[in-house]
Amino acid sequence: MEAAESGRPGPAASSSSSSSSSSPPAAAEGEKTGPAAMRRSDRDGGADGRNVGFVLVHAGAGYHSESKAKEYKQVCKKACQKAIEKLQTGALAVDVVAAALIELEDSPFTNAGMGSNLNLSGDIECDASTMDGKSLNFGAVGALRGIKNPILVANKLLSEAQKGKLSAGRIPPCFLVGEGAHKWAVDHGIVPCPPDIMTTKFSLSAFRKNRRKLELAEKVETEMIQTKKRREVTENVSVFIFTLSTNVTASLDTVGAVVVDHEGNVAAAVSSGGLAMKHPGRVGQAAVYGCGCWAENAGGHNVYSTAVSTSGCGEHLVRTMLARECSVALQSEDAHQALLETMQKKFVRSPFLACEDSVLGGVIVLRCCRCSMDSESALNTPALLVEFLWSHTTESMCVGYMSTQDGKAKTHISRLPPGAVAGQSLAIEGGVCRLRTSVN
Amino acid sequence: MEAAESGRPGPAASSSSSSSSSSPPAAAEGEKTGPAAMRRSDRDGGADGRNVGFVLVHAGAGYHSESKAKEYKQVCKKACQKAIEKLQTGALAVDVVAAALIELEDSPFTNAGMGSNLNLSGDIECDASTMDGKSLNFGAVGALRGIKNPILVANKLLSEAQKGKLSAGRIPPCFLVGEGAHKWAVDHGIVPCPPDIMTTKFSLSAFRKNRRKLELAEKVETEMIQTKKRREVTENVSVFIFTLSTNVTASLDTVGAVVVDHEGNVAAAVSSGGLAMKHPGRVGQAAVYGCGCWAENAGGHNVYSTAVSTSGCGEHLVRTMLARECSVALQSEDAHQALLETMQKKFVRSPFLACEDSVLGGVIVLRCCRCSMDSESALNTPALLVEFLWSHTTESMCVGYMSTQDGKAKTHISRLPPGAVAGQSLAIEGGVCRLRTSVN
Repeated sequence: MEAAESGRPGPAASSSSSSSSSSPPAAAEGEKTGPAAMRRSDRDGGADGRNVGFVLVHAGAGYHSESKAKEYKQVCKKACQKAIEKLQTGALAVDVVAAALIELEDSPFTNAGMGSNLNLSGDIECDASTMDGKSLNFGAVGALRGIKNPILVANKLLSEAQKGKLSAGRIPPCFLVGEGAHKWAVDHGIVPCPPDIMTTKFSLSAFRKNRRKLELAEKVETEMIQTKKRREVTENVSVFIFTLSTNVTASLDTVGAVVVDHEGNVAAAVSSGGLAMKHPGRVGQAAVYGCGCWAENAGGHNVYSTAVSTSGCGEHLVRTMLARECSVALQSEDAHQALLETMQKKFVRSPFLACEDSVLGGVIVLRCCRCSMDSESALNTPALLVEFLWSHTTESMCVGYMSTQDGKAKTHISRLPPGAVAGQSLAIEGGVCRLRTSVN
Repeated sequence: MEAAESGRPGPAASSSSSSSSSSPPAAAEGEKTGPAAMRRSDRDGGADGRNVGFVLVHAGAGYHSESKAKEYKQVCKKACQKAIEKLQTGALAVDVVAAALIELEDSPFTNAGMGSNLNLSGDIECDASTMDGKSLNFGAVGALRGIKNPILVANKLLSEAQKGKLSAGRIPPCFLVGEGAHKWAVDHGIVPCPPDIMTTKFSLSAFRKNRRKLELAEKVETEMIQTKKRREVTENVSVFIFTLSTNVTASLDTVGAVVVDHEGNVAAAVSSGGLAMKHPGRVGQAAVYGCGCWAENAGGHNVYSTAVSTSGCGEHLVRTMLARECSVALQSEDAHQALLETMQKKFVRSPFLACEDSVLGGVIVLRCCRCSMDSESALNTPALLVEFLWSHTTESMCVGYMSTQDGKAKTHISRLPPGAVAGQSLAIEGGVCRLRTSVN
């Protein structure tokens, strides 16, 4: 455990990974999941180099209770396994990342797709986006109702745009919202889903509880508003509400994934039901370019291929453009140090969030480059060196990862160290993996 | 006129401003509008330093016919005058920029607010956003129907977010779309506007023409699709359609403004009806953070305050994040050179648009810093040095600018030099202005 200074008043930022261990990482046998620094997940000699790849998923940065830890880990495991199955068939990263997201969206425990948070009107409206590091194409949907897997629409927007212009020279859209997005999805063969199927017993019960809290808060607020300013009132009301039960905004568990395929292409995706009790039509980072996900293959000025997916409070993640900031930072030599500094300087202490006393979010990142499998022999077997990390300022973040050389997925609920304050401190962990490839 | 190399195959990029004249700029009497390098717009001794400011507006990067030049210039002039009136009353940049946008949106000639392009269903759906360089707050609306001035909603979202959290600790939204955005606007006192009032005779007639073109294109496409791939087909169909009449996607004339106020705060805003015949629900750069507008006051690592507003093909402007890229680049010493290089490397030749044969867009930018009014005297009168530029790859871009020290606004339709190819070449022009202030 290592503590780093935080410029924000309050407890210091915390890092649960040593900054000295990330670069250059060495290949070794896979290790058990735990809060150790930079785990290694490869099995060097186990593959023939065809259709290799790696996936890292998250079931959200937020709060994951111990009682539901098993379910969160289980969904991450399923998403990893699905991604690895796809990678083994030779699928490209952009489609693999969508396959992983479908598993995550389909879980009633995550705040994405099925079982998403309900908005103020009691409806589910989802945001999702995906980016392909190979083509640099992007597809996104915002405030989408009645589609079980919003990531499918984002993926379809991306793939349709790659086909070129529409009739009469029209430029294909990369970002659709609301009713129009729903219509486009159905017109493109995606089956609609009735709202009552997407709403789970849990999401409906949470909505009813939140609505009561809100009514109570607004009643208290109305009584207090005569004498005080709004900021003071809402703070007081929040404190009052917190003493009654949990925070209305606690469900931040957006999902996402980052993937590298056998060609070394990277892709990223993110999907979210948004904040609980959000205003209808509210769009969070999961649909916003540069904020929810980012993927860029190596080339040009980029030494590394990078892929990022974010989770947390959408407004904080939008205003800091966290996905792209992480991607840019990951071009520097030490991936761990780069992510740590980005989370501290560009997120927790970002001038764009100077007025926020609590900055809530998390990221999963992956970067890779070509290397040799046997660095000390003359064989020079081509390989992909994959470094992967996660970091969060929320209480916890649930992640899973797996390579095509692994027998099973590893899952982990990362938690802030004892004494660390959510929104002001951060945790950072990661690993490294070397994949034998057939091409250099 | 100066020609600069372009990496994209085809004619060279063109710049109508000398790169040597922009920094450090000197103060001088205002000059007539024309394609000269770095015009000067100040009148040094004319103000008492109270409530000074400067505004630069655009009525879009696209194609502005000579026959309508007068109307485009007139709306830019009115927008500048409105902004200057507000600045003179001591209003802050973020509200001044909204006042300018309202004038631009209210013109039936611009593709924003009233008279916007109709989408595929014959409806008007608008995008708009605004950013305040002082607070770094941002407000945006996407695919908004039935509101005459979308910028008012974006401005209101920004100002409401500044008041702090909502009841029960909920985070206020910064980006709303569709029906939800409309409801929020009405709930916050913004009067709805019936669609038939927002649709003009001109926008309806353009829609009918475009619909006929589309029907024809799709008929031809259906006949050709049996034997060819879609990209080839759409290109052929586009060529065929172009020979019949103008391009369906020609109306790119989004509007925007950048402002600096008497405190030296900057703000930016943008508003757009989007591409003609766009899919319902399609959101363009005007609603996307970092893509439609950007504003950041000086401070921290920023020597200059910068404000940027973009116009053109939304998908191209989103995928290149052009507003923010320009803002970052403007921190380097030579503003003109920085903008020229950004437009060439990060837009026309952007790896994110490598598959596009034509990259269409334009920007207006402003940067300012504190300086002395009388650089050679011992008086050291405090002043604001304002540099402003515009650049576009489209056929033309209509701009207007004015300072509180000017008697009237200057307007100009910037055009690509003869022989330059839209989408592959660019024009760049600008000016400088020194404003006497009462505070240092």
